[in-house]
Amino acid sequence: MNPFRLNDDRYFDPDPQVRSLARDLYERVKNLPIVSPHGHVDPALFVHNSPFPNPTELFITPDHYLFRMLYSQGISMESLGVPKKDGSRAETDARRIWQLFADNYFLFAGTPSQAWLQYELYVVLGVPDPLTGGTAQRVFDYISEVLQTPAFRPRALYDRFRIEMLATTDAATDTLDHHKTLRRDIWKNGVVPTFRPDGVTNLLDPNWKKNIALLGKRVGKEIRTFAAFVKALEERREFFKKIGAKATDHGILSPYTHRLTTAQASALFSKALKGKATPKDAAAFTGHMLMEMARMSVEDGLVMQIHPGADRNHNAAVYHVYGPDKGADIPIATEYTNNLRELLNAYGNDPRFSVVVFTLDESAYSRELAPLAGHYPAMKLGPPWWFHDSINGMRHFRERITETAGFYNTVGFIDDTRAFLSIPARHDLSRRVDANILANLVVRHILTRTEAEQIGSDLAYNLVRKAYRIDTKGIS
Amino acid sequence: MNPFRLNDDRYFDPDPQVRSLARDLYERVKNLPIVSPHGHVDPALFVHNSPFPNPTELFITPDHYLFRMLYSQGISMESLGVPKKDGSRAETDARRIWQLFADNYFLFAGTPSQAWLQYELYVVLGVPDPLTGGTAQRVFDYISEVLQTPAFRPRALYDRFRIEMLATTDAATDTLDHHKTLRRDIWKNGVVPTFRPDGVTNLLDPNWKKNIALLGKRVGKEIRTFAAFVKALEERREFFKKIGAKATDHGILSPYTHRLTTAQASALFSKALKGKATPKDAAAFTGHMLMEMARMSVEDGLVMQIHPGADRNHNAAVYHVYGPDKGADIPIATEYTNNLRELLNAYGNDPRFSVVVFTLDESAYSRELAPLAGHYPAMKLGPPWWFHDSINGMRHFRERITETAGFYNTVGFIDDTRAFLSIPARHDLSRRVDANILANLVVRHILTRTEAEQIGSDLAYNLVRKAYRIDTKGIS
Amino acid sequence: MNPFRLNDDRYFDPDPQVRSLARDLYERVKNLPIVSPHGHVDPALFVHNSPFPNPTELFITPDHYLFRMLYSQGISMESLGVPKKDGSRAETDARRIWQLFADNYFLFAGTPSQAWLQYELYVVLGVPDPLTGGTAQRVFDYISEVLQTPAFRPRALYDRFRIEMLATTDAATDTLDHHKTLRRDIWKNGVVPTFRPDGVTNLLDPNWKKNIALLGKRVGKEIRTFAAFVKALEERREFFKKIGAKATDHGILSPYTHRLTTAQASALFSKALKGKATPKDAAAFTGHMLMEMARMSVEDGLVMQIHPGADRNHNAAVYHVYGPDKGADIPIATEYTNNLRELLNAYGNDPRFSVVVFTLDESAYSRELAPLAGHYPAMKLGPPWWFHDSINGMRHFRERITETAGFYNTVGFIDDTRAFLSIPARHDLSRRVDANILANLVVRHILTRTEAEQIGSDLAYNLVRKAYRIDTKGIS
Repeated sequence: MNPFRLNDDRYFDPDPQVRSLARDLYERVKNLPIVSPHGHVDPALFVHNSPFPNPTELFITPDHYLFRMLYSQGISMESLGVPKKDGSRAETDARRIWQLFADNYFLFAGTPSQAWLQYELYVVLGVPDPLTGGTAQRVFDYISEVLQTPAFRPRALYDRFRIEMLATTDAATDTLDHHKTLRRDIWKNGVVPTFRPDGVTNLLDPNWKKNIALLGKRVGKEIRTFAAFVKALEERREFFKKIGAKATDHGILSPYTHRLTTAQASALFSKALKGKATPKDAAAFTGHMLMEMARMSVEDGLVMQIHPGADRNHNAAVYHVYGPDKGADIPIATEYTNNLRELLNAYGNDPRFSVVVFTLDESAYSRELAPLAGHYPAMKLGPPWWFHDSINGMRHFRERITETAGFYNTVGFIDDTRAFLSIPARHDLSRRVDANILANLVVRHILTRTEAEQIGSDLAYNLVRKAYRIDTKGIS
Repeated sequence: MNPFRLNDDRYFDPDPQVRSLARDLYERVKNLPIVSPHGHVDPALFVHNSPFPNPTELFITPDHYLFRMLYSQGISMESLGVPKKDGSRAETDARRIWQLFADNYFLFAGTPSQAWLQYELYVVLGVPDPLTGGTAQRVFDYISEVLQTPAFRPRALYDRFRIEMLATTDAATDTLDHHKTLRRDIWKNGVVPTFRPDGVTNLLDPNWKKNIALLGKRVGKEIRTFAAFVKALEERREFFKKIGAKATDHGILSPYTHRLTTAQASALFSKALKGKATPKDAAAFTGHMLMEMARMSVEDGLVMQIHPGADRNHNAAVYHVYGPDKGADIPIATEYTNNLRELLNAYGNDPRFSVVVFTLDESAYSRELAPLAGHYPAMKLGPPWWFHDSINGMRHFRERITETAGFYNTVGFIDDTRAFLSIPARHDLSRRVDANILANLVVRHILTRTEAEQIGSDLAYNLVRKAYRIDTKGIS
Repeated sequence: MNPFRLNDDRYFDPDPQVRSLARDLYERVKNLPIVSPHGHVDPALFVHNSPFPNPTELFITPDHYLFRMLYSQGISMESLGVPKKDGSRAETDARRIWQLFADNYFLFAGTPSQAWLQYELYVVLGVPDPLTGGTAQRVFDYISEVLQTPAFRPRALYDRFRIEMLATTDAATDTLDHHKTLRRDIWKNGVVPTFRPDGVTNLLDPNWKKNIALLGKRVGKEIRTFAAFVKALEERREFFKKIGAKATDHGILSPYTHRLTTAQASALFSKALKGKATPKDAAAFTGHMLMEMARMSVEDGLVMQIHPGADRNHNAAVYHVYGPDKGADIPIATEYTNNLRELLNAYGNDPRFSVVVFTLDESAYSRELAPLAGHYPAMKLGPPWWFHDSINGMRHFRERITETAGFYNTVGFIDDTRAFLSIPARHDLSRRVDANILANLVVRHILTRTEAEQIGSDLAYNLVRKAYRIDTKGIS
């Protein structure tokens, strides 16, 4: 294999029968449109449609997958030009940062970051040299030049990537101005918002009071009571829906759900407004708000997404200087059977409700998540998330989920990225890995080839559209 | 592959060396008798020996593996004719239910239910068409007709399946009348009971007081004290043994074991008789009763089986209308090292004691269960259970257990089913998967072929007989 | 395969491409020197350099991996001649014990013990017959004779095994006399001590007060205060360093870390001196001492090793008669994200600090350990430990660690054994398994061959030297 050209059979099993069938199954889905119902791309990217400045700004400084690995090996955040909370950077020489990255590129061997980067460099950008310490500056030049051409502006790439729908993640208090612009001027449903109310439902958020004030501003009245708060959320959800939102998202430590009495919830809210909420109060309030969000989803049809189990900003020193999303979020063991009981008992049998549950705790796949999704009509399983969005992560997921929940209680692939260029890379990897899994099942005579072909299309395209209630015409 | 004919190499790895050896190893064990020391077949089936009425009654309405998957995809229990607690059914048209099932058969792709069903349809029943929405009614006709022939009555199938021993599961209060009849008229030890006292040891069982009264009736004296309760259990165990029982079974939430003082246990029992037992009381009482059951096992030689970790009837709405065993039992994380300490310290070194431990929590395999079974002489590991009774489940088990506990601290395969027709299907699948695992070890030069052949026979037949102390002549 | 000759391709995947490449990668590393920075070999072995007496004394009586498996199958400790706490043995006939072992050798099928034993018997000792019940006495004779020859004395084997450095594990109170002798007379840095202070940091150790007294003796002043205790530890670490120590080791139940105030720590210490420490006190004290040990590591450069999660001496009856290390240590679920937070926040960003973390809980690999090691510069992951030092254990580790933490946040292989003869067997197995894993990644086009070759050498040799700060010239 040419060391920098991507092999057409990459990620497939070596067995000739499996490999050949995996290739066939992959060929059938590789050009299907990309539906991306959950991610963190900034909508401003498409409004401004400016060229990406250079490879360092494009790949390294915004990507905590990359700089956390370099940091773990003793390379300082300073030398990588990671922006501090105040926006300043210690190192501003993009070429020097790129060189440091290229010199340490070997650290990513065997990680999905490497797989995605290779796709971005060699497939998306057409870099003609393998990235090494020796070629780093030449590659920098090449990429910088290419990025200035019209074909590599965000909207052109959106089209080239065959994206059919891309969801962003937006605070409950967001004006969605960029989305409005895009909706009016560019694509009707091409980029849609997602309602993420964590900033107003988490009483421990350092900006909680500010967020509540802003929420009041958005709905045009000051929020002094829990009732007004709930009303405001309902209004904001309606607004998000009007701008195209399909879903809400909830990033919480524990998926604990429990409905409080209105009096209890109101008391907690008032206590928080006085700045007196304790961690215990916050946990109870979050548990109640998940119940409220499910109730609203039943009513307004927004799909509910639960992303639990990340202990955010584990490294206080890094957080203090650089703020959140710096590669220091660490998973914890996450319990679903007891925690989701109330939510699923209240709404899990309701055909109007749809909840997609994710995990960072692989031990919950076969023990709790597959049995829950294999019973409750409202619950579906999100794909392997974050640290598990990888070749082995996907294999672990299918091997632990399928025999209990089948393929059809999962929702297809979700890239969950803020790195726009990595979107086709991630979908391509996922389509390859699923094709390989299906090929294995056929060669072992567990599925027929016909079944595998149908499931392949469903995993790559149809299931995500069904799960997120997307109405535009499908392909299948 | 003909889409509905089962391939002779199904479930084997694609590698030609592994596949060929797996086939050889499987051929050596495929016709060994079936020993089924734990399951839920109704003994009345064999007493009445009536024909099964139709495919719907045979396959769907009694099998929560099947209807829970359909339910999870929004198909109502009503439309599937699942019987309510009062015995009534919303849909009674067996043909319509069968059609609904066939139309949604694709949901089972990649699940063990599909693998078992294929075996039952094409191998046991000889259905000449693949089951699809289009063939559903023709298949219904074919099966209905075949079921009326003498060869498909329960006793004939028992013989055809080469069953050597089949254990049922029976309440401590059961009269075992059917077993007595079978023992007298049909087979000496062909169908044996298993002593399952959960209904009288779980103080939170809604029928607990009724069960205690019934237990008193069975032993001919009212039970007013804990001492009388223990005495009654000892008598009932003796009775079960006389009717052929080899084992007891304990379905509990947590495998917590702790001996109370007699005074403490008596006080809890009296409190419960007054209807005042709390969940904490019940947990303490269960922990004590496991110690008592182990003590009795040491004395009477019944093998103790511990099945923990299923949170029963998670979906209250389904439970309210349809009762238990409706596919809504969800596993929870289960701890063994601390919970089993007292039981193993008291009885685990005693050669008279044998305890078979199961789990629904795969994370406990390598962490706790293999180290415990790899040390205590009395403890053996039950095979992958329930959600894990599957191709990947079996692979996970062997890969996490064998290197610490070896093959000989496991007890062979246990089907644990209430679906009589699935028994040969499940044993066949298990024998195939173990043959494939052993073939892999030989081709990797971890075992010799001679070792693999011996282990193959042991896993399929000899180990289960040894673990459950079955005395009839073996084959090996 | 000749049943007792080891196949050159053992442990490699059957796929011809993978197998051939695995063989090539293995050939490149198989003769690299062995660096063993953590283990339990007795340094007296090399000082005395006496011949090993016979195969039973060499293999069985000191190896809890072996006799626990036999014990789990009902073979008594007595009949195996396992030494009691008072040093006495029920069975003293080495030949009879060897026969019993050989008769039950089949129990080890598929375990790493079998793989290691085969290497020791056929590669190290050159036994010409396969070990069976029938050949047991002949093999006993052969081994006994060979052990008397100069080539099989400990120092000769050390050279033949190509050991470059071997670390022992030593109490904080050890005089290190044997190490001094070895250092002066035999090898400068060939055998080095490791500082393991558990006996003085665990307030519940039955010998704690005796150990504190001894510690005082070692530093020449009685220890009456916490301050004196800390001072003594610092002095002892300095002494260990002078004798060549590279690391400290901490065997604890939970990796909980939390710094107490000096007043709190002093109070606990005084309470313990009065014999009044509770389990809660001990847990708090251990958590504080881990912080102190990390602080000292920052200052003196000793690498910190954390080995948590073994519930020691689970079987009280066995412990009572035979003492510790009798195969009755059972793992428990182990939490790292919260427990290590304080330690990593205080010292994890410090380039002077290096902490190697191990686990017996495989569910923590992808959930907690890889994300932590993939972020904090000071933290590296120890290889699969104890029950997981096996073919599948190593595969689980790489498959769950690599995609998040890469190869370079791990520390290479560590044998952690007290069985000197098994050292080359364990390193050989590890090198084979890693070669096979790397070959798979190349054939799947995830790594290039060049990358795999470099990583292969790093895993086998370079990483362990880097992690343990070993200065002697490398090979690579």
